[in-house]
Amino acid sequence: MAEFFNVISPSDAVSLMSSKLTPVGKEIVDTSNALGRVSFSEIKANEDLPAYDRSAMDGYSVRAMDTYGASESLPAYLELAGEVPMGRSPRVKLQNGEVAVAFTGGMLAKGADAVVMVENTNLTQSGLVEVFRPVAQGENVIMRGEDYSKGDVILRKQSTIGAAHIGSILAVGITQIAVYRRLKIGVVSAGDELVDPDSIPCEGQIRDVNLYTIGSLVKSMGAYTKYYPRLPDDFVKQKTTAGQALLENDMLIFTSGSSVSHRDMTANVIKGLGHPGILAHGLALKPGKPTIMGMVNDKIVVGLPGNPVSAITVFDNVLRPVIAHLKGLRGWNRRIIGEAILSTDIQSSSGRTDFIRVKIRKDIDSGRMYADPVLGKSNAISVLSSSDGYFEIPSPDSGVYAGTTVKVFV
Amino acid sequence: MAEFFNVISPSDAVSLMSSKLTPVGKEIVDTSNALGRVSFSEIKANEDLPAYDRSAMDGYSVRAMDTYGASESLPAYLELAGEVPMGRSPRVKLQNGEVAVAFTGGMLAKGADAVVMVENTNLTQSGLVEVFRPVAQGENVIMRGEDYSKGDVILRKQSTIGAAHIGSILAVGITQIAVYRRLKIGVVSAGDELVDPDSIPCEGQIRDVNLYTIGSLVKSMGAYTKYYPRLPDDFVKQKTTAGQALLENDMLIFTSGSSVSHRDMTANVIKGLGHPGILAHGLALKPGKPTIMGMVNDKIVVGLPGNPVSAITVFDNVLRPVIAHLKGLRGWNRRIIGEAILSTDIQSSSGRTDFIRVKIRKDIDSGRMYADPVLGKSNAISVLSSSDGYFEIPSPDSGVYAGTTVKVFV
Repeated sequence: MAEFFNVISPSDAVSLMSSKLTPVGKEIVDTSNALGRVSFSEIKANEDLPAYDRSAMDGYSVRAMDTYGASESLPAYLELAGEVPMGRSPRVKLQNGEVAVAFTGGMLAKGADAVVMVENTNLTQSGLVEVFRPVAQGENVIMRGEDYSKGDVILRKQSTIGAAHIGSILAVGITQIAVYRRLKIGVVSAGDELVDPDSIPCEGQIRDVNLYTIGSLVKSMGAYTKYYPRLPDDFVKQKTTAGQALLENDMLIFTSGSSVSHRDMTANVIKGLGHPGILAHGLALKPGKPTIMGMVNDKIVVGLPGNPVSAITVFDNVLRPVIAHLKGLRGWNRRIIGEAILSTDIQSSSGRTDFIRVKIRKDIDSGRMYADPVLGKSNAISVLSSSDGYFEIPSPDSGVYAGTTVKVFV
Repeated sequence: MAEFFNVISPSDAVSLMSSKLTPVGKEIVDTSNALGRVSFSEIKANEDLPAYDRSAMDGYSVRAMDTYGASESLPAYLELAGEVPMGRSPRVKLQNGEVAVAFTGGMLAKGADAVVMVENTNLTQSGLVEVFRPVAQGENVIMRGEDYSKGDVILRKQSTIGAAHIGSILAVGITQIAVYRRLKIGVVSAGDELVDPDSIPCEGQIRDVNLYTIGSLVKSMGAYTKYYPRLPDDFVKQKTTAGQALLENDMLIFTSGSSVSHRDMTANVIKGLGHPGILAHGLALKPGKPTIMGMVNDKIVVGLPGNPVSAITVFDNVLRPVIAHLKGLRGWNRRIIGEAILSTDIQSSSGRTDFIRVKIRKDIDSGRMYADPVLGKSNAISVLSSSDGYFEIPSPDSGVYAGTTVKVFV
């Protein structure tokens, strides 16, 4: 059984595949609808924000010098010259000793250079405004361009667009932006023993769940999943379908049965589709060793392990960063859920990365978080469903002692 | 200005609103399409998984006793009686001293009780199988029900459905499940100074960005966002639109202008819509104080601050947990991106929760992560777009010293 002569580390697998991939092209979308998309170009402010000096407070716009020396015991008495309504440019022009009502976000009266907060004033019955505290020039004013000056970078290219970015970009009037187009990823499952989940399997058959777990993970990365009809253990049929799927998608993922014969057929299909063919066969990863990484022309074709836990582990740790690169992102980080104290010793094999599933438990007395390994049934999908996340034992290490603080990822 | 006589803490605001809300009803969806949805009921295995004893390895199914005493130097010589193909029930029945080819995931021959890994065997030219290591009964076999036994809980109710859950649920043949239906949340913006983002604002006007940032955040929680036409500072028009929006949605969010007059009008509109009306007016939170929390019949109506940074902060820390409750989740956790060392002293006011935006920086020499506060322009949306996350200064504290390790959330 020499099938795993070419085992590589998960990080090498990511580098190998990513280095051969160019991110997909762009499309133009409405900024308001761009949540979660990836910026294709740097986005710069094409005007000042705000476009005019604005009041940061409800109160009165003033000439700062008219408030100098004002105090609780000796207020400045200023004349109310009018107000600047929200959404309007000022008609009022302040003369010496005059103020005008100002609203948060609204403009100042002409001639004003500061705003007195309403809390520090009193409007007398005779219409004079008592000011109890002096303000400096520019106080309580948001200056033109203070948020963004024309030319400032709002968002670097190849970044995920969040809600605040949408706000920033719309605020300077950019209502359409270039983003990387959505990926299309084909998912193919093959294996004589696989049946539809809504079937009653005969003896020896199993329901095909990998197709849907992997398809769901693809969707979770913002890509379109295209499912293909389940295939028998038939080289010609697999090659025909895979060839078509490769044309229709940016990447192709095989989820096949778990035996070596399935892996051999997947490898042969990838070889048969074109060059360069197999890039690596086998990952130094537990669970997830029987993974086939291939490339046909400029597209990645991956054969995932048949075991559902292995398939999901490989997707999360090897395919996610590759897909992130293909969709235009500069980097990719696993999602951490926190740190916790490992509750039992865990052995590993040096030369292999191990992912250990854990449940997180808060100790009532100490308030500390513990990570309890979910062991027992190896490779059972129940382990995945009942764990909160996993921690990693890097390749050089032969284990982790109880009491070690580990980073838990999902 | 007594408008904030009723200021409450963010956590009290969450409790107050959540305690009055019952999660929405259910709908039935395909399991394969349930990613990210919330389970309405506990989901149990209605059959054993696997449904039959399966081989965990490629190799030979055997009667364990026939391998006892086998070793490299003195292998057991066993007769090859046939194979059990993938996806088939066994036709072969082992007699004393016989083995049958077994595939990972496939069934064992009748009479077999263990599997010998192919790595520990040699097939001789005469068709005998040499076995170099003994196996115990059950070794390399996944027993019927080992993953899930009939009646085992696969997923608790009120849990978010992940890819592994989809796999587990489909594996036992459950192809449709009950989930909480998707929320519908209406977003209304009002203010005479607001104009569409694609307009050129006149002096005093600003582009309405909160509508889209808040709408995007609503979408990020898996809810439908319904946008309503922008409203002027007109009580009757606001009340009419809000009344209609309340009928059409499970929750209503006002994003209005930033001045006190806007807040007064929002408060009056909420009062005018029905009982109980205003629940609280003002949050002990920076940024985010001018928030209005109301309820009309059994639905929450919230008036967010006009400042975009405040609006997003309130959404992330107050509305997210309330929406999580309404969509059926048992709990809600902020998403942590890790821990980092605060690089400068930060002052706060006791009696108020402060959220401080930071950029994360990795120190090249020490490899440690630092959190650099993004200060300067207060309440500028550029601060949100250029920061990586925030940390919290709880209400009792008056500040955090440089060198403190803080948890950074997004």
